Amino acid sequence: MDLDAMRASVARQGAQVRELKQKGAAGDAIKAAVDELKKLKLDLETQMALQGPSEDGLSKHEKKALDDLLLRKMFVVPSFEIYGGVGGFYDFGPPACALKSNLLQLWRRHFVFADQLLEVECTNLMPEVVLQTSGHVDRFTDLMVKCTKSGECYRADKLLEDHVEHFLDQHPDLSQMEREKHELHATLAESYSPKEIHQVFQAYAIKAPGTGADLSFPIPFNLMFQCAIGPEGGLVGYLRPETAQGIFLNFRRLLEYNAGKVPFGCAQIGSAFRNEISPRAGLLRVREFQQAEIEYFVNPKDKRHPKFSTIQALALPLLTKTNQLTHGKAVDMTCKAAVNDGIIANESLAYYLARTYLFCRIIGIDMKRLRFRQHLNTEMAHYATDCWDLEIKLSAGWIECAGHADRSCYDLTVHATKSRVEMVGTHKFDQPEAREIVEIKPNKGKLGRAFKADVATILEALETLKNDVTRAQAFEDALALKGEATLGSLCNGKEFQLQRDMVAIKVVKKMVSEEKFVPSVIEPSFGIGRLLTAVFEHSFSIREGDEKRGIMSFSPLIAPIKVSVLPLSNNSAFEPFAMELENIFVEENVECKVDTSSVAIGRKYARADELGIPFNVTIDFDTIQDREVTLRERDSTVQVRIAIEKIGAVVKKLVNGSATWDQMLERFPKVTAATE
Amino acid sequence: MDLDAMRASVARQGAQVRELKQKGAAGDAIKAAVDELKKLKLDLETQMALQGPSEDGLSKHEKKALDDLLLRKMFVVPSFEIYGGVGGFYDFGPPACALKSNLLQLWRRHFVFADQLLEVECTNLMPEVVLQTSGHVDRFTDLMVKCTKSGECYRADKLLEDHVEHFLDQHPDLSQMEREKHELHATLAESYSPKEIHQVFQAYAIKAPGTGADLSFPIPFNLMFQCAIGPEGGLVGYLRPETAQGIFLNFRRLLEYNAGKVPFGCAQIGSAFRNEISPRAGLLRVREFQQAEIEYFVNPKDKRHPKFSTIQALALPLLTKTNQLTHGKAVDMTCKAAVNDGIIANESLAYYLARTYLFCRIIGIDMKRLRFRQHLNTEMAHYATDCWDLEIKLSAGWIECAGHADRSCYDLTVHATKSRVEMVGTHKFDQPEAREIVEIKPNKGKLGRAFKADVATILEALETLKNDVTRAQAFEDALALKGEATLGSLCNGKEFQLQRDMVAIKVVKKMVSEEKFVPSVIEPSFGIGRLLTAVFEHSFSIREGDEKRGIMSFSPLIAPIKVSVLPLSNNSAFEPFAMELENIFVEENVECKVDTSSVAIGRKYARADELGIPFNVTIDFDTIQDREVTLRERDSTVQVRIAIEKIGAVVKKLVNGSATWDQMLERFPKVTAATE
Repeated sequence: MDLDAMRASVARQGAQVRELKQKGAAGDAIKAAVDELKKLKLDLETQMALQGPSEDGLSKHEKKALDDLLLRKMFVVPSFEIYGGVGGFYDFGPPACALKSNLLQLWRRHFVFADQLLEVECTNLMPEVVLQTSGHVDRFTDLMVKCTKSGECYRADKLLEDHVEHFLDQHPDLSQMEREKHELHATLAESYSPKEIHQVFQAYAIKAPGTGADLSFPIPFNLMFQCAIGPEGGLVGYLRPETAQGIFLNFRRLLEYNAGKVPFGCAQIGSAFRNEISPRAGLLRVREFQQAEIEYFVNPKDKRHPKFSTIQALALPLLTKTNQLTHGKAVDMTCKAAVNDGIIANESLAYYLARTYLFCRIIGIDMKRLRFRQHLNTEMAHYATDCWDLEIKLSAGWIECAGHADRSCYDLTVHATKSRVEMVGTHKFDQPEAREIVEIKPNKGKLGRAFKADVATILEALETLKNDVTRAQAFEDALALKGEATLGSLCNGKEFQLQRDMVAIKVVKKMVSEEKFVPSVIEPSFGIGRLLTAVFEHSFSIREGDEKRGIMSFSPLIAPIKVSVLPLSNNSAFEPFAMELENIFVEENVECKVDTSSVAIGRKYARADELGIPFNVTIDFDTIQDREVTLRERDSTVQVRIAIEKIGAVVKKLVNGSATWDQMLERFPKVTAATE
Repeated sequence: MDLDAMRASVARQGAQVRELKQKGAAGDAIKAAVDELKKLKLDLETQMALQGPSEDGLSKHEKKALDDLLLRKMFVVPSFEIYGGVGGFYDFGPPACALKSNLLQLWRRHFVFADQLLEVECTNLMPEVVLQTSGHVDRFTDLMVKCTKSGECYRADKLLEDHVEHFLDQHPDLSQMEREKHELHATLAESYSPKEIHQVFQAYAIKAPGTGADLSFPIPFNLMFQCAIGPEGGLVGYLRPETAQGIFLNFRRLLEYNAGKVPFGCAQIGSAFRNEISPRAGLLRVREFQQAEIEYFVNPKDKRHPKFSTIQALALPLLTKTNQLTHGKAVDMTCKAAVNDGIIANESLAYYLARTYLFCRIIGIDMKRLRFRQHLNTEMAHYATDCWDLEIKLSAGWIECAGHADRSCYDLTVHATKSRVEMVGTHKFDQPEAREIVEIKPNKGKLGRAFKADVATILEALETLKNDVTRAQAFEDALALKGEATLGSLCNGKEFQLQRDMVAIKVVKKMVSEEKFVPSVIEPSFGIGRLLTAVFEHSFSIREGDEKRGIMSFSPLIAPIKVSVLPLSNNSAFEPFAMELENIFVEENVECKVDTSSVAIGRKYARADELGIPFNVTIDFDTIQDREVTLRERDSTVQVRIAIEKIGAVVKKLVNGSATWDQMLERFPKVTAATE
């Protein structure tokens, strides 16, 4: 049945229900109409599931088959499974481990080697001072509500989102306007204050799932895992909630390693930890995960990128702030146009969006199910100037798989202030430039006599006037005019009255040949588990005509195993050939798997397909005579016949991309396989 | 001066001091002799340091130069340095990060791919039940003493070792026998009980360093970092102290992935965490580190290895249990002889010792400074049957860099018992074999009436009789003879009197075609930080004739950067060539670094040498005319001249080992460089 027709029926029935209600029809009539509406919706869902791949992702049936395959083939399994598991922890089994390693190798090549970035590896455990300064100790929180009966805890925003979804399911006859009013609560859930979300909870009368008991007032829960470092127990440590901080801490040494030059970038691949209140099944919200992050340090006055010209003509699917508030659709736009029109804040940010786009293509993401969504002003951190999420359409919806933020100079500034270690770059002018320089001459003796212990604070405050010509001039003017001026209020809340004879300030014009700056940071940040989930979903399909045969169409570049060696049966005459082929592939550094089991060849192909092995080499009875084998390509299942002597080089080329399967079809005779 | 002559002087003077004491000579005379002895020792040390590389490692002077280079070139830097650092935490900077990544890639190729092992990646955080069962919660401790004045904590064994060393330094005139008596305390320090080590502390009157105050009685301190998982706070978690446990937990799924076949191996590379009481400077004792571990599961009755023949003729430097207690020297022995003579417990263990040996060669360890030390019976865990440490001679002495243990079936057994998940392999016989099988028929009705709630315990206890034919037969005999028999005492301490009519037991002969077994585990376990330290120390030297020029002679396979591109000066005519060369190497996937700074070419070579870049390409004025560059080999500093068109392929081959430098010397004209 036509899905569009079914969708139309649902819409018509919805309208009818609303009409009945407005007319004040009898309860029975309304109930019958609502029941019919529910039935139509169920039919639509069932039909969608049956029809297989919808235009934008896996059907429910396929999603179930994929989840089953991921577990059965040990891609991803719950950690500590034999002890019942703990929410939010997953282990990677052999195929996912290899896939991830290949993906990270490609990431390194694409982002680190190609642009000669630096790379560091910092510790997972960090002392409190680091995360206090970065703001994580105070602000890295989610709102949590507690069941007053069972003591179980829930993430308030997720509970609200679920409630709204359920509520809308239960009230299919609401008008569009009413629906949107409810949906707004779900959209805003994450940004509500404790008081606001509490009011919404009360309005909906939301109770604890399971028990139905009252919920506590929402309180902020810090998501960092805490532990004591050292035997004395006095040093508080946290597991890092992001890898970025380690790079900021090393800025000064990195700058030196880079011979003092800015811009430069530094990458880090590593674990991060978040004690999620309500972890989700699968890799989308876990308590331990891997990130790959880049901090690209630039002069805040010059955020051009030296390689921008290489990507400026590339068109990206951009869901801008404006579009989100109007038609909600992504629009293709070249990087050049986006930067020129001020849609993407600067070249460096655009460069990384483009590089991320190209990376997704390399690893086999379906480029039609990908977009860059700009953060609304309300959702950005206060110090960020522009943020774009890479969102990939998965069965769970549009999921953020990478972020690209211009974090301005926030991180370096807070760490420099707290640690009192200067973190600045130097911009050397092509020729000396005229600048207004503030010269300050304090009379320390007079200040000392007048302010005693406060002198250090006063001198520090005077020093900051050097960064603000206007304020410095105003201060001097006041001294000249009134004989005294007020300094402050300072960060400790104090104010000081300074006399004319305590300090002299002069703004002079000077020719300078360089200036210092605190670099801005452009941060592309990838969630590896989410990218893997995207690769899984976008690579999976079910072999046509055979419900039970799943295929993982991984690109050969990231496939965990590149080739399988499959004797037609467990006839011992095939054994020496299997060993010979295995040695050939080990020699060529092509990961290979030999399947010497006694199952039929069709079953062996099916197993190989489930692991996403792109090429299969079959040994048959002819091989014994002519030393030729068949080479099968996974997705087309087409086979060609090749001499053993050539197979190593051929597969190697196919795998590293220096030859295509079409070329092989021209070069070698095609074989008709009756065994699929 | 000749070192041997100086050593002889020290020995003679030592003898003289002892003689004076024995004769009861005057205090002044003894003091003068002791002072002379101290002076001679100091001279010897100074001379050793000056003479440069001693036969077995770096001189003190070289060690200092290496440490300086590692920090300055950002190989390894203290974590959170801008906040003063925290003991036992280090970050890897760009060159070490790349070196480590290359080393792990080689490890994977050598151990995982070559033998088709499985690989997993499990979580760093684990719930308490896992580490309670493995024994870590109860036994993963070090003895700690606390300063009663400052509250600072110290690791008792290390304090004792330091004290003994200092004591022997202060008493150079002790006889060999006396020295050995003291040294024994240091040797045994790690294995003392709290009471024993306390007595030794009191005998030496050891006080707290710094304060000189009394030390507390030694208490066991658990080295695991603990934190709460989930918002409720009730679930205790630990950061894993080793990666091995994750593999054991996944045994059942891994076995299934391997089509039910044993033997098989599974590897894991990942972080581990130990809250060391007294971390050391450098990577040798840190609180966060990386391991690469393999668990190779074998049938305990058949620990042969299918690839043993490939390494059986290899001779390994073995420091056996016996030799440690006699002459203390490692002896070269082939793997075959060592297994045949029962020196290495089995083929699988020997196979991994041999593979480790070969791996060390690949990564550039000096094979003369390496040995395998067998654990003494007293130092092995109670469940282990044979253990061999890979020890590498470093400036800190012989350091364990990898362990190889036969852990028997301990881990799988404890986890299977606790989780009640069966973890066994199946051995299928070539032909059916006769076995005695215990058949048990309990009369549940009668048992139930007699024992009520205890029935489950009794049935479980009866079930265990199936594993012990003798005990089962004895129990049946007692029932037959006396009409009743005692079951127990069971793990809960209870005993039960069972009557004849409650159970019938029969031992029957049956032909069976397979048997189940709990696999034994052979565990090679590598400390990556320690291996890196060994690579650093064994690769470092100082360029002859130039005190200040350090070289890192990394093998091209693990070198962080493979080639540098060096324009002779910052003349802009060289720029297009530098860009062209960079592109050539990026195309060939050869990591390259361009140095366009304005320093002299000799300084550029020196910089490249410090980073261990094996090949340097120099662009000079001739290049502009003839499109040829010079290629310099790091260790010999010899240069040849090569056309730009050929340089990419040549360097690629040199780096991946498919061509040698000697071949290049034959193929291309040598250039005399006046610029080193």
